Amino acid sequence: MVEDFKVTPWEVEGVVDYNKLIEHFGTSPLTEELLEKTAELTKSELPLFFRRKFFFSHRDYDKVLQDYEEGRGFFLYTGRGPSGPMHIGHIIPFFATKWLQEKFGVNLYIQITDDEKFLFKENLTFEDTKHWAYENILDIIAVGFDPDKTFIFQNSEFTKIYEMAIPIAKKINFSMAKAVFGFTEQSKIGMIFFPAIQIAPTFFEKRRCLIPAAIDQDPYWRLQRDFAESLGYYKTAAIHSKFVPSLTSLSGKMSASKPETAIYLTDSPEDVEKKVWKFALTGGRPTLKEQREKGGEPEKCVVFKWLEIFFEEDDKKLKERYYACKNGELTCGECKRYLISKIQEFLKEHQKRRKKAEKQIEKFKYTGKLAQEMWDKAIPEPLKG
Amino acid sequence: MVEDFKVTPWEVEGVVDYNKLIEHFGTSPLTEELLEKTAELTKSELPLFFRRKFFFSHRDYDKVLQDYEEGRGFFLYTGRGPSGPMHIGHIIPFFATKWLQEKFGVNLYIQITDDEKFLFKENLTFEDTKHWAYENILDIIAVGFDPDKTFIFQNSEFTKIYEMAIPIAKKINFSMAKAVFGFTEQSKIGMIFFPAIQIAPTFFEKRRCLIPAAIDQDPYWRLQRDFAESLGYYKTAAIHSKFVPSLTSLSGKMSASKPETAIYLTDSPEDVEKKVWKFALTGGRPTLKEQREKGGEPEKCVVFKWLEIFFEEDDKKLKERYYACKNGELTCGECKRYLISKIQEFLKEHQKRRKKAEKQIEKFKYTGKLAQEMWDKAIPEPLKG
Repeated sequence: MVEDFKVTPWEVEGVVDYNKLIEHFGTSPLTEELLEKTAELTKSELPLFFRRKFFFSHRDYDKVLQDYEEGRGFFLYTGRGPSGPMHIGHIIPFFATKWLQEKFGVNLYIQITDDEKFLFKENLTFEDTKHWAYENILDIIAVGFDPDKTFIFQNSEFTKIYEMAIPIAKKINFSMAKAVFGFTEQSKIGMIFFPAIQIAPTFFEKRRCLIPAAIDQDPYWRLQRDFAESLGYYKTAAIHSKFVPSLTSLSGKMSASKPETAIYLTDSPEDVEKKVWKFALTGGRPTLKEQREKGGEPEKCVVFKWLEIFFEEDDKKLKERYYACKNGELTCGECKRYLISKIQEFLKEHQKRRKKAEKQIEKFKYTGKLAQEMWDKAIPEPLKG
Repeated sequence: MVEDFKVTPWEVEGVVDYNKLIEHFGTSPLTEELLEKTAELTKSELPLFFRRKFFFSHRDYDKVLQDYEEGRGFFLYTGRGPSGPMHIGHIIPFFATKWLQEKFGVNLYIQITDDEKFLFKENLTFEDTKHWAYENILDIIAVGFDPDKTFIFQNSEFTKIYEMAIPIAKKINFSMAKAVFGFTEQSKIGMIFFPAIQIAPTFFEKRRCLIPAAIDQDPYWRLQRDFAESLGYYKTAAIHSKFVPSLTSLSGKMSASKPETAIYLTDSPEDVEKKVWKFALTGGRPTLKEQREKGGEPEKCVVFKWLEIFFEEDDKKLKERYYACKNGELTCGECKRYLISKIQEFLKEHQKRRKKAEKQIEKFKYTGKLAQEMWDKAIPEPLKG
């Protein structure tokens, strides 16, 4: 890309122009028409992720809706790379996924790639990524998925995924993988194989798969779409989200590697207050006087962006805040305090549910209805209880 | 190699000079001293595979014997790529492996690479290689291993192997794999990953692993030895066998892709008679008169080679036959008839044991003591019976 931004499965840099990204990736915009159809089929009001175009692009989402409408159904697939604690930016797409599962009543597969993170991160041990897998799964369960329609699996444990990846791994040669992911002579053979493992769950059912994920994961799905039909499956569909910016900048995405710029799901109310107060970038003017005269710039403000993406559910309130800022009626301190209270409220509830998740983990991974069906295929008959 | 022969894990061409191979591969000759030590430790007479130097080379076999002597023990690992029916050439090394298991009383792991054969053979489906896995396992069980000390596993089924391969796959980059196995830009990503899967069983126990296999598999073990210790395991040991020649030529090795040149383990007595009679290369002279005058050339004779490698257990008889041939006292027809009867006798017994193996397969794969221990590690606690 010759743009001022860069988006790959491992890197998001610069202020992303999402319209250009649609062009570059060859995806389609998520139109009003598709959103209306979604509301109609689910007989529901759209959640803010859709209303506010946090999901902005798609592949074959129109076909997913058609499959649903005509009774063929579909299933959901998403994932998480457990390289550290999860932050706000990681969990938001899971709330969108939860809405889709609930409203369409479909199965959901969540892949925890403890293999990938160990392979790609020089300094992480396999024990590390397995540990983070456990921690991250608690956060994911806390979102509130249906335990009988959701299968959360770690690649290091649900290794049946290897068998499922083999026919895929016969469809991709090094040259293709290099072109899509930029592998080199120094890339480890585990990294080179990994795309087959990430693609495998798109074939878990003989229905169309819908993947709600940030757009940087799209290269995997593009590759899948090249050969899915030759293996007797559907090309996967996807809806693509934007990135959640870090506290300190609207460019790039929130990164767990800079702890002060991210709010973790395990942060205390005091952490939240301190971080937002100290690090949050706003669109405020240098002096209060100027702010009152010229008004603030909510377009340049991370605090406003976070409210827009997740923390202000009420469209009317958001709009009022926007104009109040523009008109110089608000100080950045007021907005920060409001965001702090919203985040604290969210984390308080999340952390309660996370605690409860410790008791639900077995169900999501092994004993819930869908989990059991999947493990049933993985364990040879003579070894069954 | 600038020699007239070529040995890689996928190709054996030309008349192999085994002494040169030891030099090229950087292995050590299997000396009289090591063989005597083997006889001493096992308190047994050596089997013909050792007496007649069918196993001719090794890596660290001296250390294996030392580990055994000093009580640290060791374990055996070998395998089979199920791309078709097994022939005589495939099964002979398994008899050597059986002898080692029996005499040293050690665990044995047999990897059935249905993943590899599907990935490497353009025209085989995964169903094909899984089918051949079943058929080949029957032949292997018929050799007579200890069902409580032997674990036979198919990679497509005992997928725990994937998790075990991951740390290995972080140690090998594309450049290394290319140098050892000759991968190209067109190689499928499954092929590129496969060395990690083949190496994984060398880490099944925290003891030294001994691999009895034909020398063409050595590149895998050489790679393993580069990083085994950095992962906290032993460098694997190996003893290397020569190749079993096809019926029609002393160069190359018996190949399942030319059915008339191989004797299959499922061949009928009539098949055996027809193939040996029609296709076996001998060291005979053009006319009986010449044969009587000049004598035959057992060094150039496949019939004699097969008797030497496997079918003539009696050293004295073999020697007598050698000189009788040299002295012109034997006709090729006589030797062929003798070999035919020996092969028929062997196959009759083998096929009986193969039939019985249908009832033992569950034990070797799932319910024998060692198999159970291995599966126990692969199945998560909440799913156990």
